[in-house]
Amino acid sequence: MSKVEDALKAPSVRSRNPERTRAEILSEAVHEFAEHGFHGARVERITKAAKCNARMIYHYFGGKEQLYLAVLDSVYAQIRNREAQLRFGTADPITEARRLVEFTYDYFAENGDFLKMIRNENLLQGKNIKRSQMIRDMSQPFIAAIGELMERGYSAGVFSRKPDPVQLYVTVVALSAHHLNNAATLGTVVGQDLTDLSWQAKRRDHAVEVVLSYLGIQTRG
Amino acid sequence: MSKVEDALKAPSVRSRNPERTRAEILSEAVHEFAEHGFHGARVERITKAAKCNARMIYHYFGGKEQLYLAVLDSVYAQIRNREAQLRFGTADPITEARRLVEFTYDYFAENGDFLKMIRNENLLQGKNIKRSQMIRDMSQPFIAAIGELMERGYSAGVFSRKPDPVQLYVTVVALSAHHLNNAATLGTVVGQDLTDLSWQAKRRDHAVEVVLSYLGIQTRG
Repeated sequence: MSKVEDALKAPSVRSRNPERTRAEILSEAVHEFAEHGFHGARVERITKAAKCNARMIYHYFGGKEQLYLAVLDSVYAQIRNREAQLRFGTADPITEARRLVEFTYDYFAENGDFLKMIRNENLLQGKNIKRSQMIRDMSQPFIAAIGELMERGYSAGVFSRKPDPVQLYVTVVALSAHHLNNAATLGTVVGQDLTDLSWQAKRRDHAVEVVLSYLGIQTRG
Repeated sequence: MSKVEDALKAPSVRSRNPERTRAEILSEAVHEFAEHGFHGARVERITKAAKCNARMIYHYFGGKEQLYLAVLDSVYAQIRNREAQLRFGTADPITEARRLVEFTYDYFAENGDFLKMIRNENLLQGKNIKRSQMIRDMSQPFIAAIGELMERGYSAGVFSRKPDPVQLYVTVVALSAHHLNNAATLGTVVGQDLTDLSWQAKRRDHAVEVVLSYLGIQTRG
């Protein structure tokens, strides 16, 4: 089929912009899979929201499963890209350690669909994420950057210890995400509204203080 | 019906021991609800595992929903009872702070069904836990005990700060549970097996160090 025929047959302007169509499908699919999980997600709801048809999903992704894998890759690519913008190694170690916590905290607070994708994927025992070499590969530089930051802060005598970067990162994520994932149960147990913005602001300060004091940095007094 | 008639009609010895039957149903129900969530759980599987019949579940609990509520109350009662055995106020503050982290860490590591019940209840937006005055009430003394421990450690000049007990507790839980709930995804991201026992042993030490250094206690060097 020639380009002219293709254009004439196209049902909408959008179909001539495959990049944009693909991105729009992906964006709607994130929300659908986040909300309903892999099994509960409905391709029809995605096509309706993205104003396309099921054929296009099969054309661009190959099917529901491949679409889910693409969604998973894309949500991790997004956070890794944002983390790369922190450009560790350009500021002093204390500032960077603080930025690591604040960025991670804010990212989870602002990206509910990312948290839900993670929750759903763990409900599937990580069956899909384990197949993604891309997620594995793109995460290594960030863990390495945290390791270099720890090394730099410790060598400079600014940090009192040099933690395992993986343990530190798991702690930063735990401090940032656990109260969001468990707001309903923990909120009842402690008798406070963990979804309240002022509660979350206090939580953010607390998370920063916990990590900085672990590195031996005085945050008050 | 006389006691003799009752005994003759009883289908098994167990039906004459209502306490034990109730406890056995509850114990099987914890596992079923933990594994499958409220909607996925099947009363027939519970009756089969508890070697009873559906009528007994209705007799002892009133129905599937009330059984779920009883399960939820019971898993929280279990951890609160164990926490009460820590008897805060009887040892020095550093020992007690360390015990708080170690106990919580071990409890989550050893009670997978409790973690799964929490996960499932959060998937239901805490619809059921919010109805439980019992869970609310029994948690308050523990939060208060943590507050007193913080006060005592700080007044004695042993802790360098006096954290909000709720923030501290949420942190202890986050450090203990997040890597378990997210073992599949985080494990892929960091390229390590978070279910490995030696990884978890390192995590336990790390969690203790994080909390103690936040309280201003030197844990090494």
